[in-house]
Amino acid sequence: MYSFKNDYSEGAHPRILNALIESNMTQEEGYGNDTHTKNAISKIKTLIGNQNIDIHLISGGTQTNLIAIGAFLRPHEACISANTGHIAVNETGAIEYTGHKVITVDSNDGKIIPEKIQEVLNSHANEHVLKPKLVYISNPTELGTIYTKEELKDLSEFCKSNDLILYADGARLGSALCVKKANVTLSDMCNFTDAFYIGGTKSGALLGEALVIKNENLKEDFRYHLKQKGALLAKGRILGIQFEELFKDNLYFELANHANEMANLLTEGLREANCKFLINSPTNQIFPILENKQIENLEKKFSFYTWEKIDDNNSAVRLVTSWATPKESILEFIDEFKK
Amino acid sequence: MYSFKNDYSEGAHPRILNALIESNMTQEEGYGNDTHTKNAISKIKTLIGNQNIDIHLISGGTQTNLIAIGAFLRPHEACISANTGHIAVNETGAIEYTGHKVITVDSNDGKIIPEKIQEVLNSHANEHVLKPKLVYISNPTELGTIYTKEELKDLSEFCKSNDLILYADGARLGSALCVKKANVTLSDMCNFTDAFYIGGTKSGALLGEALVIKNENLKEDFRYHLKQKGALLAKGRILGIQFEELFKDNLYFELANHANEMANLLTEGLREANCKFLINSPTNQIFPILENKQIENLEKKFSFYTWEKIDDNNSAVRLVTSWATPKESILEFIDEFKK
Amino acid sequence: MYSFKNDYSEGAHPRILNALIESNMTQEEGYGNDTHTKNAISKIKTLIGNQNIDIHLISGGTQTNLIAIGAFLRPHEACISANTGHIAVNETGAIEYTGHKVITVDSNDGKIIPEKIQEVLNSHANEHVLKPKLVYISNPTELGTIYTKEELKDLSEFCKSNDLILYADGARLGSALCVKKANVTLSDMCNFTDAFYIGGTKSGALLGEALVIKNENLKEDFRYHLKQKGALLAKGRILGIQFEELFKDNLYFELANHANEMANLLTEGLREANCKFLINSPTNQIFPILENKQIENLEKKFSFYTWEKIDDNNSAVRLVTSWATPKESILEFIDEFKK
Amino acid sequence: MYSFKNDYSEGAHPRILNALIESNMTQEEGYGNDTHTKNAISKIKTLIGNQNIDIHLISGGTQTNLIAIGAFLRPHEACISANTGHIAVNETGAIEYTGHKVITVDSNDGKIIPEKIQEVLNSHANEHVLKPKLVYISNPTELGTIYTKEELKDLSEFCKSNDLILYADGARLGSALCVKKANVTLSDMCNFTDAFYIGGTKSGALLGEALVIKNENLKEDFRYHLKQKGALLAKGRILGIQFEELFKDNLYFELANHANEMANLLTEGLREANCKFLINSPTNQIFPILENKQIENLEKKFSFYTWEKIDDNNSAVRLVTSWATPKESILEFIDEFKK
Repeated sequence: MYSFKNDYSEGAHPRILNALIESNMTQEEGYGNDTHTKNAISKIKTLIGNQNIDIHLISGGTQTNLIAIGAFLRPHEACISANTGHIAVNETGAIEYTGHKVITVDSNDGKIIPEKIQEVLNSHANEHVLKPKLVYISNPTELGTIYTKEELKDLSEFCKSNDLILYADGARLGSALCVKKANVTLSDMCNFTDAFYIGGTKSGALLGEALVIKNENLKEDFRYHLKQKGALLAKGRILGIQFEELFKDNLYFELANHANEMANLLTEGLREANCKFLINSPTNQIFPILENKQIENLEKKFSFYTWEKIDDNNSAVRLVTSWATPKESILEFIDEFKK
Repeated sequence: MYSFKNDYSEGAHPRILNALIESNMTQEEGYGNDTHTKNAISKIKTLIGNQNIDIHLISGGTQTNLIAIGAFLRPHEACISANTGHIAVNETGAIEYTGHKVITVDSNDGKIIPEKIQEVLNSHANEHVLKPKLVYISNPTELGTIYTKEELKDLSEFCKSNDLILYADGARLGSALCVKKANVTLSDMCNFTDAFYIGGTKSGALLGEALVIKNENLKEDFRYHLKQKGALLAKGRILGIQFEELFKDNLYFELANHANEMANLLTEGLREANCKFLINSPTNQIFPILENKQIENLEKKFSFYTWEKIDDNNSAVRLVTSWATPKESILEFIDEFKK
Repeated sequence: MYSFKNDYSEGAHPRILNALIESNMTQEEGYGNDTHTKNAISKIKTLIGNQNIDIHLISGGTQTNLIAIGAFLRPHEACISANTGHIAVNETGAIEYTGHKVITVDSNDGKIIPEKIQEVLNSHANEHVLKPKLVYISNPTELGTIYTKEELKDLSEFCKSNDLILYADGARLGSALCVKKANVTLSDMCNFTDAFYIGGTKSGALLGEALVIKNENLKEDFRYHLKQKGALLAKGRILGIQFEELFKDNLYFELANHANEMANLLTEGLREANCKFLINSPTNQIFPILENKQIENLEKKFSFYTWEKIDDNNSAVRLVTSWATPKESILEFIDEFKK
Repeated sequence: MYSFKNDYSEGAHPRILNALIESNMTQEEGYGNDTHTKNAISKIKTLIGNQNIDIHLISGGTQTNLIAIGAFLRPHEACISANTGHIAVNETGAIEYTGHKVITVDSNDGKIIPEKIQEVLNSHANEHVLKPKLVYISNPTELGTIYTKEELKDLSEFCKSNDLILYADGARLGSALCVKKANVTLSDMCNFTDAFYIGGTKSGALLGEALVIKNENLKEDFRYHLKQKGALLAKGRILGIQFEELFKDNLYFELANHANEMANLLTEGLREANCKFLINSPTNQIFPILENKQIENLEKKFSFYTWEKIDDNNSAVRLVTSWATPKESILEFIDEFKK
């Protein structure tokens, strides 16, 4: 039974485990002051091409979102998210727990556009409603779609001219950056946002996300927030070692690229067999529409989530590939689909 | 340069890394629903001798404290801690961030006694002050001292009869349980408290603490709180695998025992050389009082924290041993001290 | 220039001011322990016909909502509101500040029905999303509509069978209870909800709302929450005196009835002159649709809020009457409209 | 039975009630946008001699403290208070509920000095502990003592040079300003602090405190915080009218002066009869030490709080005078004491 449920079903890429082993018995400072964390941060800064940014390594995505947004906003400020945004639907009110409302705007493809933000601004103009202050996007989105360079630029300019913070959730960022036609680089992510994070957990690490803060106003005292929310690991080294390895010899992008290729292969195979899709996704999450009977059959050999009812006979399912997905599993799925 | 700064300077015990490697490519469910986590929980329940408890694996100690206390208390309720308690002095107001005051009581040895709690209850008797509801203890304490079985029993009875929750921070619990004269077992910890946690990070794991909830009223919906505070790791397996290994063949206690033995050896060696101590600690943190000049000398070969000024010429330092401390480093330190 | 902007443009009904004067120099206990507060609470209990309820007098509506909801919910629980609900749109994220998400459901008339709640429950079934726990309704709604006895009963039964708290915002409750065809009494409000409040500020008092808690589980320690959120007035007597007077000789309902009558008169007058309405409201807020040009003209003599754009030439406005609205102002408005 | 329990036992000064009556039927804007609030604010600005300050009228002291401190601090920042401070002991954890710790420093007289603040700064120097950011003082203190101009200046300079916000709770500010030897004016309060409030509730108003914000960085968006915490009264006029009257013809200071004079008269009378005091208070709260038997006797004719046990036979009591205290009650108390 092969699982396409998500991209965190396996442990870590072997090179990462190896790095943990090799460094294991060296004594290091705690709480992220170790040499590996410093080295990882240095590598990422160089890759981004900006030494004037702050980078913090954090255990997981929800934790990164809640700490960043909680630190960036004052009590009366709110964030804006697509109605499909992870913070809006899948984090058990983590943002609200920090005291901030997530104002959602409708989106068909998981993306958010300036016009929708403007509507929120128009209806939030005095002290009887919250002050929208941060725009949350995810790239790729929760539907596998991605922002083009142009779209990011537009969002960035809109946010700047409206004094809004632009924050990007990059849980699967590698996957977005490896889509060539989008033409978005790590440097672009940094240039166009005030802060964003580079996901590790879903890209071959055991755990870990790298939060990048560019906006000078958002940097101050950030480690206090990490500690206060329980995110400053005593053995911070385990995050450092992993990101050090991920950004050595391009490993991070190789893994993301593999995940994309497997998803593309699966998409093509299903398309050839006349399968329709809920949405066009160039990344490692795809959403084919299957007959319910077919789903039942496929579930005998594969596990995956049914995403959305289309009509009485059909549903969209979500298939997720990863750095660890073997080509054979893709081909088997296509074969099984064709039957 | 050998570091006695803390018990989280190295990575993980080799058996733990090995377990991570062996399980690495098997696909598992996410968010703590994997087979390893289930197995680890089952082992701990058996060891405690109580199947009717809930166990949750969490990344770190501050995170465990803030989630547990935040979940257990209603908004108008407060916790009581020794003035040396970790939640009172070293967690950047994590508990206050959840909205709850930490009321401190004076303590010379890091422990808290019913009389001190009673004083707090006496001065908190109406709605103009908070309602004390939870007593926080750490075992061992932040000063390395431990509670005897009798002391835990007294605290437990006092709390029960005053409708107070007794919660124990066990960041270094193994070390306390391995002190024979205290005569406290994992079962006792469970019997005498409403909830407590078994520390992994400082006992040979890469990261991870096992929160045990016995009180029926505190169990409900706990996974919601984990998710909301960003503590439900996508690859929860990495916590499960580590605790599975720690509680196989007594590894957890072997490691704690080693740490204690190294600390005891160090204590004896220093005592023989007429060294005085700030406090008597039978666990893996000891607090010798050294001449400032001596400290300067020792710092050339060892790193450690100066804890407290005693007078103009003397200070107490903190020396921490761990599962990884080699006997030679102990002997070297003693030698160097004698010079 | 007469204002139909709201029902809190004037001070208090003269009888209330008189009561303040008469009681002024008597020394009373502070913080709601005065004889007037006790007397007011006793009167309301008798009127409701239930001695086994708790009543707390609080300064304003937003404050009442945030304290009640903040006290009733645990951190991982959320409330459900119509998308027009005051807590969802007009309280500057007060509920989110207490850490709780307001999940909104679409509503055309400001009311919420069991089917919509069921949809929320269906999509909130595990720990990755919040646990819906409280249903917030307002009666009358923010659109002036009201719940019938049957509708309240249905909601009540649905909530009970789904372990949901039903909470009613009664900022203008008098106005709802005075609509005869709805056939809802103060006792019904108490029977069908777990808690609700009786608005004073918009019904002739200087300030003050009376929160009624029937559900036994929600009563405990409530005064702690009042104090913690700054709602326990030192001179609590000023709330007690006002509610004492409002519930003497039926004054509360007389005032609400007057407000309704004035609104009905206005509605009839405008209808006769062929005016259409955004919604049918039997209470003291009405929403006629006017030509923009007409609005401009009317604004020379009256002040009121433009509520919603209908099309390029027409907008709905909101006209609010109160205990203080003179019949002449109504007639003048109709006259002016007819011109 | 005359009560010396507090200075909020009666209603309001008759001139205030009169002002409410006279303005009652005029329609005004809601939420503090009325003419009276604007006029009151203008009067206070003139009195302070600074037009470049923001003033907000709020219902009560705890509410003012929690909104101001909650708005001024970021999540990882803490406040420092004397251990006798109202926010530390008598507000049911209102500040902690906003997420901020109140770090207390020992004080015998209710006052706080730079040396004590420096000690806190010394022990709070990294991200494992909170960042102290605001110093809370009360003037007069909870023990009736006051700060001299020199002491305020010292505190002010210390705070400025350490980047700390100085905030003063002026629940009984009038009483402090009327002590001639202290030589502190309303302008001084403004000059030496970043923000402070002028208490109305304990100085003859039904309710109301005027928060003055001088520090430019603390002013922005403050009304959002008021609304979010439920403090923006629909009929904000009732606060405006009262402060308008209090600052007409020096009424505020006349009332405070009367309270002080009555307290001084009582102090002198008791001193002449050889009574000792817990502390020297020049304001309207005094703390004579009485024999327990004497207390019992006096309680037959007067009500007051026993403050603190001195020894087995003696206790300090708290006697509070106010704008409403008649001279005869003072003389009666002295007579009764002498018996």
